[in-house]
Amino acid sequence: MNNSEVPKISEFPFGNENKEYQRYFSGKSWLAPLTKLNQLNAPLFNVTFEPGCRNNWHTHSGGQILIAVGGVGLYQEKGKKVIRMNPGDVIEIAPDVKHWHGAAPNDWFSHLAIICNPETNETTWLEPVTDQDYQIATHQVDIL
Amino acid sequence: MNNSEVPKISEFPFGNENKEYQRYFSGKSWLAPLTKLNQLNAPLFNVTFEPGCRNNWHTHSGGQILIAVGGVGLYQEKGKKVIRMNPGDVIEIAPDVKHWHGAAPNDWFSHLAIICNPETNETTWLEPVTDQDYQIATHQVDIL
Repeated sequence: MNNSEVPKISEFPFGNENKEYQRYFSGKSWLAPLTKLNQLNAPLFNVTFEPGCRNNWHTHSGGQILIAVGGVGLYQEKGKKVIRMNPGDVIEIAPDVKHWHGAAPNDWFSHLAIICNPETNETTWLEPVTDQDYQIATHQVDIL
Repeated sequence: MNNSEVPKISEFPFGNENKEYQRYFSGKSWLAPLTKLNQLNAPLFNVTFEPGCRNNWHTHSGGQILIAVGGVGLYQEKGKKVIRMNPGDVIEIAPDVKHWHGAAPNDWFSHLAIICNPETNETTWLEPVTDQDYQIATHQVDIL
């Protein structure tokens, strides 16, 4: 799948295929940096997931903020029910909270991501979200 | 004008009329806090301007990031040409740069705002953008 096959689901650029992090994702994603000034300490990206794509369970030592801007997505913290993300929804991820996010099974999804406390923020990538756990998540929010 | 008269121009909540800062704005605006966790150090708001509304010239000692999400807006740094903001546009405001932002004369406008470096960020409000300077700005981007 190349960039020309990414549908327009928001007004934000989708960038390039996110190959650097592909090993931490099940499925394909695209990454667009939206800011450049380091001194603002709030790097901003647009992340786009193909249908069914989600990232592995992971943590951010400095936290992260997700801003849904297109399509339909999913967000889950360990031990909690999955949350459906629609455009306009904002999710605050506290430091060190284990979580994953991605697209619904039949929808593309784009969220902006703010890297919080970037000077010290480290991401720890953990195990993939299995097909079974992803299926259970989609049933929790009746998203199929 | 009450909240029921604010048109839907994005998927984000517009919040309440921004009375606390009204003295620094020419026209009416609405403010919706979108985050709560102080430890993330990136407070996020949705700011909505009625047509013609703009804030005074001002500076942020820690900078700010604007993310256009609905309608048509304007952004100008002192001594530079005005910039038209459409949904999907992101503006990085470096610390201490004198600037203003607001709606186009005949359009509502909403942008998200990230308060950068919030622990030390101070906003200094300066003179209003005069009707004449606002009119010149709108002509610069042929937005009438």
